[in-house]
This record gives sequence, C-alpha cells and structure tokens, in this order.
Amino acid sequence: MTVLRSANGKIILFAERNQKYAKMKIIRGGVTAPKGFLAGSTSCGIKKSGKTDLALLYSAVPCMATGTFTTNRVKSGSVVLSIQRLKKGMPQAMIVNSGNANCCVGRKEIKDAIEITGLAAEKLAIKKESVLIASTGIIGRPLPVDKIKKGLNRLIKDLSESNGTNFAKAIMTTDTVYKEIAVKINIKGKVVKIAGAVKGAGMICPNMATMLAFFTTDAAIQKEALKQAFREAIYDSFNKITVDGDMSTNDSAVMFANGMAGNKIIKKNGKDYAVFLEAVKFAARELSRKIVLDGEGAARFIEIIVKGARTENAAELAAKRIANSSLVKTMIAGGDPNWGRIAAAVGSSGADINPWRMDIYFNRVPVMKNGTGTNASRKPLLNIFKKKEIEITVDLKSGKESSRVWTCDLTEEYVRINAEYET
Amino acid sequence: MTVLRSANGKIILFAERNQKYAKMKIIRGGVTAPKGFLAGSTSCGIKKSGKTDLALLYSAVPCMATGTFTTNRVKSGSVVLSIQRLKKGMPQAMIVNSGNANCCVGRKEIKDAIEITGLAAEKLAIKKESVLIASTGIIGRPLPVDKIKKGLNRLIKDLSESNGTNFAKAIMTTDTVYKEIAVKINIKGKVVKIAGAVKGAGMICPNMATMLAFFTTDAAIQKEALKQAFREAIYDSFNKITVDGDMSTNDSAVMFANGMAGNKIIKKNGKDYAVFLEAVKFAARELSRKIVLDGEGAARFIEIIVKGARTENAAELAAKRIANSSLVKTMIAGGDPNWGRIAAAVGSSGADINPWRMDIYFNRVPVMKNGTGTNASRKPLLNIFKKKEIEITVDLKSGKESSRVWTCDLTEEYVRINAEYET
Repeated sequence: MTVLRSANGKIILFAERNQKYAKMKIIRGGVTAPKGFLAGSTSCGIKKSGKTDLALLYSAVPCMATGTFTTNRVKSGSVVLSIQRLKKGMPQAMIVNSGNANCCVGRKEIKDAIEITGLAAEKLAIKKESVLIASTGIIGRPLPVDKIKKGLNRLIKDLSESNGTNFAKAIMTTDTVYKEIAVKINIKGKVVKIAGAVKGAGMICPNMATMLAFFTTDAAIQKEALKQAFREAIYDSFNKITVDGDMSTNDSAVMFANGMAGNKIIKKNGKDYAVFLEAVKFAARELSRKIVLDGEGAARFIEIIVKGARTENAAELAAKRIANSSLVKTMIAGGDPNWGRIAAAVGSSGADINPWRMDIYFNRVPVMKNGTGTNASRKPLLNIFKKKEIEITVDLKSGKESSRVWTCDLTEEYVRINAEYET
Repeated sequence: MTVLRSANGKIILFAERNQKYAKMKIIRGGVTAPKGFLAGSTSCGIKKSGKTDLALLYSAVPCMATGTFTTNRVKSGSVVLSIQRLKKGMPQAMIVNSGNANCCVGRKEIKDAIEITGLAAEKLAIKKESVLIASTGIIGRPLPVDKIKKGLNRLIKDLSESNGTNFAKAIMTTDTVYKEIAVKINIKGKVVKIAGAVKGAGMICPNMATMLAFFTTDAAIQKEALKQAFREAIYDSFNKITVDGDMSTNDSAVMFANGMAGNKIIKKNGKDYAVFLEAVKFAARELSRKIVLDGEGAARFIEIIVKGARTENAAELAAKRIANSSLVKTMIAGGDPNWGRIAAAVGSSGADINPWRMDIYFNRVPVMKNGTGTNASRKPLLNIFKKKEIEITVDLKSGKESSRVWTCDLTEEYVRINAEYET
C-alpha cells in the first residue's frame, strides 16, 4: 500500500496496490468541484462549541440521485423523509445538521424534517420535495427547529462554488479532520468530475454506521447506471470498514448527478461506465479509509485480508470477526504481536475453517503456519507493530475466495471519547 | 437485586430477586467442600510472576462427570483430550495450568496433554484416562512440559481438603480475585454439597469464552440427571454473560459427582432433582456474576433485561447486542445516561422489533417510551449511573418472551490490560 503524506505528515492519500488509475486524476476541492454544485455552511447554535453545524449542498439543476441508508430498525426522521423523497423525484438540495440526530423523539422527527426542508425549498425557490435532509449527533433530543430556521438565510447566502471544504467541516461531529476528495475523468473528450465529502469517526461498522456521505458528479448518466455504480462503490468501501461494530440510526450516503458536464449520457456496462465506476470506487475507498484513520481514538490503520476461503461469505465473516474483536484491536493498540487472538477470532467467526490449515501473516511475515506458531523472532514483529499501518493476512487454504476489511485499533482514547460524549 | 458485601466492601454474594433458596445454605470453602475431594496447587514457573500456575483437583473415587467446552474451531489440545476422555469414562482428577493455553502449537498440544496427564495418573496411581486437563493463558507458545513435570510431585504432595481456595487462586490469569462458592442441600436426610471454582476476566462472551469452571459435588446422581442439571445451569449463567464479545480456544466447564454423600441416587425430574438443580443453578449464577464483576477493567456490573419480545431468540439477540456494544459499555463507564445508544443497539440487533413500541428504563426510571425520549430529569439518572450496579430494561411490548444478560462497562483500564497482556 503506497501512502502519500502532506507536508505536515498527515496521510492524505492511498494509491491502491496492483491497480492503476491511468484515466483518472485527483483534483483539489470537494463536493463543489463538479460543475453546477454550490455549498454553504453556518453555525446556528446546535453545537455548544459554536462550530458550524448546518450545511447545504445545492445543484443549479435537478439531479439524478441514488442513496443507501442505515438498516437499523430505529431510524431518524431525517432518514425516513430522505428515503421517501429519493424514491420519487429529482432532488436538487441536501440540508445537513450536525450535533443532533433527530431520532427517538417521536412523530416530531418527521414533522421537523418536513418543516425545515420546506422552508429551505421556499427560500431556494425550488420544489419542497427536491430537498433532502440528513442529521447526525445525539439521539433523543428534539431538533432545535427555531435555531435552524433562523440560520437558513445565512446558510443560503453562504452558497458558493468555493465552499465545498466548509461543507465537509460543518458535517463533522467527533471527527478530528474533514474528509473530502475530488477526481476528474474524461468521457469522450468531455471532462467529468466526481467528488465526495464524508463524516465518520465513531459507530462505524460494516454495512455503514453513523456515517454521512455525499457524492456529487456533473456526469450525465442514466439513473440505473448511477445506482449500480454507487452500490458497487459502497459495497467495496463503506461496507467493508469498522471502527467499533456499532450501527447508527442515521447513516445516509447519497450521490447526486446533475449532467452539467455535457458528456454523452453514460449507460450501464459500456466503456464509459467502466471509467466512471472506477472513479466512484476510488473516491469511496479513499473516503472510507479516511474514516477509519480518523476512527475515534484510532492510532493505527489495519487492513485485514482473509483469503483461501471456500466462500466469499466465510472470508467476510472471518475478516469482520477479526476486525471487531476488542482483543485484537487492543493488542494492536499495545503494539503487541499476540497472533493467537487472531486465530481465536477466526475460529469463533462461524466460518467453516480447518484450523490445521490456517496461516497468519503480519505484513508479509508468517507468524502461524498450518495452525502452528512459526516462532518468528519477536523483534521484527515489534517493529511492524510500531508502524502506522498494519496488514493482517489470514490464509485458510481451503478455497479461492477472499475478503478485505479495514479497521483501526482500540485505544484508551476511544473509551475516553465515548465515555464523555454527551457531558 | 440484593447484594451482600464483605467487611472490606467487596461484593461477595447476590441473592436473587423474587427467588428463595429455603432448602439451600451457603457454606464456606470451594471445590473441596464436598466430601472426598482434595485439591493442590504449586508454582512451576509458567507465570513469570512466580504465582501459582499449576492446580490439581482429585476425588477419592472415580466420578460421574459432564462438561461443556468452547465451540471455537480453534481448540487447545487440552480441550480436545478432555472432551475425548469425558465421553468415555469416569474421571477422577483434573490438572490445570495457567499462563499457557497449549494452543496453536501443532500436534505437540495433544502429545503434551497426554504426557502430563499420564505422568499425573502414574503418580496418583489411577488410570491415565481418569485424568482430565485444562489450560489457560497465552496462545502459540509450547507448553513448558519439563517445568510442569518437575512440579508434579510438589503438586500431588499439596493435595488436601483445605486447599480448595488455593486451587481457585492457581487457575487465575488476569483475574484480580479468586472465585469460588459452596452450598449444601438436604436430600432425604443426607447432607449433599455442591461447590465450584472459576476463572474468567477477559474474553468472556455468551457461549463461554476463556473461562474455566470446575464444579464438584458429593451427590450420588444418575449421569443423565447430572448432565441435564449442568446444562441448564450453564445455559442460565455462563452463557448469559459477556465482557468483551470475544470467544476463547480453551473454555472448559466440568462437573464431577463422586457420590460420597451417600444419598439415595438422584434421578431426573424428581423432587430431589429439583432441589439439586436449584443449588447448581445458584452456584453457577453466583460464579458467573463474579466473573462479570471481575471483568478486565470493569468498574460496573450491568444487568440487561429485554422483555415483551415475540420470541426468546429475539429477546436474546437484542440483549446481547446491547451487552456487546462498545458505545453502550463506554457510556456506562463514563456515567452518562445516553440511552439513544441502547435504542440504536436494539434496532441493529436483527431482532424483529417495532421501534415505536419500545420502552427503555435505567433501574426503574423510564427514559424512553414508545420510541420517544421521556425527558426524564438528568440528575436522578446521573445518580443511577454512579452506582456499582445498573439495570437496563428494554420492553419491546410485542410479545411475552424475555432474556437477561450480564455484562460490565468498558473502561480505559480494559484497553490498558489487553494492550499490555503479553509484554
């Protein structure tokens, strides 16, 4: 895995192993990089800190759009409303509040979501069904609707092509860094841009959890093609990461395509689609990695690869069990190559495995072969565990299927953050 | 829940709510309280600390015995051998080493287990198949067989009726207190005793994980009756607790009945059986509670009750999801009544629930009713969270089934212990 770093040493970008993006270029900016998208943010007083807590994404024209949302039975009213509206029409705006989940406060949730989006639509002079809403923050407190309504004028005035990064900042909760990416591709001579902004941090689990993700593109694309590309990208990225195994009530990932690049419409399964898909997947992977790296209290990025499984499901079961094991995650926090915990996690994952065939590697160093410790010398292992990124590979040697999951270590800092979240 | 405390404030005993044990009396001592059982312990140098790390339980006569073991696909050789021997015969002794799991070191595991139990049998002058073995500690390091062999003479010399507590101490790993219990009942005029010793601490999960539990009784009892009573007691206790959701390679719970009380043989489903069952269940529950209370880094004991479920399985899914949620456990460590995390855990448990019917209580205080926050005043809630024990009740109001799970909070101390376990 090649990691690029910014001047201050922060990891800014991963380039995929064994993969080339010849047709894609990373560009500056976030959700407003594609043509016709504006963003704005303001502070309306939901967050006690006074940081920005209200964000707006707006497209000059109605969009093809697709989304995927939490599967938690307990859903925020904001999620419920956005799902409804996404099914029906061509949305043109997304309003996001951070600091309050608009969840577990009764029928008021939906009412508030309708009221806020309605007022925003009125001020933007677009149809009220064209405005979606996402919320993130504490559960069980009524949304301060009056504060949000008062903030709306400021928010709309702030709309600009240059406020993509501010949008990414305003959706943060316990995130320590904002997360955005933008790329450009070439579709039959036309420049097409794809961008995204996410918030993540705690509660991230496979199948997505308190994660908000907003993708924009100026591509002209068939709805079915957009849906399929986004689904594939999500499956390959956000559904393969985990911070603490919990799942939120508010996860929302939405992609807007406004067609303003003027390219020939991208259809499913053609060459153009392949280029578009690659770019969306790249952007989603980048952002999901950034979420893991910014996991609450995380000090290390861990890539878990389970291969040689009889079925993909078995590989995924094993990989996720390792990724969600508190014992594995604390071991890595402590820089301690106690690989037995990985073997125990795989053995209890429910995957059909033969323990006497299993191999385990830290980076490329074998620590267990055929279910038996290799007596690898301890010093090189300790050095591996000092690195910021660790790769754990489990080879079940029973088939040809594999799975990859990303996670982070479990540190005392994670406990501190989550013990003190509300107070 | 009534909690009895010893002079120094340690919790020593819980008396069950709504339940009476008129026919049972708690007595002093541990596994050697029942007639005919001897125990011994010694330090043979497996633990660097020099603490006792080898323990022996011995019955004057061969025993009816039954056991339950880890379902992890990766199993210690000690577990594999004990399962084999328990199926066949009447065991008379159990040797336990702490500090090394005898796991993931290849075929040597079984060989070592056979060698150690064989030598112990020779010295005890009993059949080699009559000796069981259990191991707990680090995975992946060969068992120091020579050290153990050298310790055997001392271990056997130490055998005594008064060493039950020392046995409980020698099986500890990261446990901070030893855990034992003994009770007596009356079966048609004869005193019958039941006792147990366990080690637990980390890696405890529903369906048992790195937990060793050894129960003794001098009852004369049919094998089928013993099996059924032990299975019921385990289901009701060790399978309902969780510390960190991980599952070990070495869990072993075995019960020995040597018949030396001279009572009329207890048969399945009679009155005597009911009295016996009640006592075994009580002992198992007591010990499982002690394990949770001594969970690595645990500061609080949490009882989770999910009721009003359509099926028992749904209730258990929801209860275990809450119990294994890092966000819920850190919230309790932080003394913060952020009940939304409980609603989110239930919603993502896979249980078929209606979020708009769900109620949540802390102790008896309602914090959510019909999926909506009650605006319970914060101060009494904060007081509840200052207590050593917290009861979380979720009422799904959709059926008549319920489940109860015990767990502990997730503290920075847990991370510290597990980050530093090996080094």
